[in-house]
Amino acid sequence: MGGAAESEARSELPVGVFDSGVGGLTVLRALISDLPHEDFLYLGDTARLPYGTKSAETVARYSVRSAEALVARGIKALVVACNTASSTALPALRERFPRLPVIGVIEPGARAAVDASATGRIAVLATEGTVRGGAYQRAIEALRPDAVVTQIACQIFVALAEEGWSEGPAVDAVAERYLSHLDARVDTVVLGCTHFPLLAGAIARRLGSQRRVVDSAETTARATQRALATQQLARTTRGGRVQLLATDSPERFARVGARFLGGSIAARAVEIIDL
Amino acid sequence: MGGAAESEARSELPVGVFDSGVGGLTVLRALISDLPHEDFLYLGDTARLPYGTKSAETVARYSVRSAEALVARGIKALVVACNTASSTALPALRERFPRLPVIGVIEPGARAAVDASATGRIAVLATEGTVRGGAYQRAIEALRPDAVVTQIACQIFVALAEEGWSEGPAVDAVAERYLSHLDARVDTVVLGCTHFPLLAGAIARRLGSQRRVVDSAETTARATQRALATQQLARTTRGGRVQLLATDSPERFARVGARFLGGSIAARAVEIIDL
Repeated sequence: MGGAAESEARSELPVGVFDSGVGGLTVLRALISDLPHEDFLYLGDTARLPYGTKSAETVARYSVRSAEALVARGIKALVVACNTASSTALPALRERFPRLPVIGVIEPGARAAVDASATGRIAVLATEGTVRGGAYQRAIEALRPDAVVTQIACQIFVALAEEGWSEGPAVDAVAERYLSHLDARVDTVVLGCTHFPLLAGAIARRLGSQRRVVDSAETTARATQRALATQQLARTTRGGRVQLLATDSPERFARVGARFLGGSIAARAVEIIDL
Repeated sequence: MGGAAESEARSELPVGVFDSGVGGLTVLRALISDLPHEDFLYLGDTARLPYGTKSAETVARYSVRSAEALVARGIKALVVACNTASSTALPALRERFPRLPVIGVIEPGARAAVDASATGRIAVLATEGTVRGGAYQRAIEALRPDAVVTQIACQIFVALAEEGWSEGPAVDAVAERYLSHLDARVDTVVLGCTHFPLLAGAIARRLGSQRRVVDSAETTARATQRALATQQLARTTRGGRVQLLATDSPERFARVGARFLGGSIAARAVEIIDL
């Protein structure tokens, strides 16, 4: 096959999106909205979630295995929609798939924060694993060397979002305990876990109206669009198909995931694969 | 080796204790207290926790693999200190290891509840997986056919316990949301997840002093003692060694696990194994 024909065939492939579970569906939602012509193949590694409390080596190993499953089905780019995996597994993924554009959520999230912040005092709310890896801090400081970054591990936010508790006294009390000691000079807060946009209302209320709350879903969608354009991989024909894969429990994926995707999901539409 | 000598050599082996993470350390704590002469080999499958949101097949597969690792090191009995695994994986474990006494936490927990209840109205607080499996309900009804059992999935309690939040407004607000609709006639509540004893104070306060709160740690220790005695596997010499294995993150296991075991754990004392 010639170069042009191969490139055209490749551009017809879906964009792979990978997450440890349903949280990445907030990123998929932004991708579908910004790139309506593209096809998407989403894999939630629900059998092995959460990644947020696991070691960097384990997360990298799981991520590569998930990516292999997507590549085997044919994808033209990979969006790592999991903050923990983005913060630790990108080098391993790029080494394993040198030709595949791999887009993480950390760098776009860091850019959104730096663009929003006047003072350069930025707080990152994330899982234990993302905080431990420190990737947001490094990404923000690379864009703005005088930034002062605070990281807060908010593990219980994940459980609240999975339970579908977006509002109420329990959410407010958890937000209070995590956020009450935040430096008053912080003017921008990054939701550094794809679960946290579900709690954005309660978090923003606790933070006060003078603070900006940003997440990486929107900016990751734009980064993906740029990567496809740069590598001439954008679809030339109309697509719009979305296929959902999970490694466990299609019913739970459909029930919990619907809240993240912002629409209903039929359990029978979720294909279970074994990794 | 003759029968008597083999039996004596076997009785010197440790008791294997298996859990999806650190929660089972509440059971290990009761075992150490009740069986101080025994050696224990504990495995927390921290790389693949939580089991509570995974399918029955996945939990059974993980449980058998963990048990194989313990059997390969030599154990004389297996305590399944994870409610989710006890509720779904016991048949698979007994089929795989027909000669090994396998003790779960469900039946002892059900017995504790039935012994404590006057009305027979019993509530089980557990993970999603344990509730879905319905094993507590079946075990309680087998002991007391006229029992009326209510199951409540309290997934966020797991996250609170792992975070070390045993008390405070957030714990009270979560307990309020899970427990406020409980039937007034329920007189006994089973903590059907090994994480929940850490929140026993807050849970008991919400339930009121007229209700009994039971957990399966104590009764599982007694069931283990009986199983060892029946099969002539109790140690004849003084042991008392405890060895801790985990599949991921020794630092986290030590830090979080100390709260469950009720004493400090050095990260270097936790051996990491790959399953």
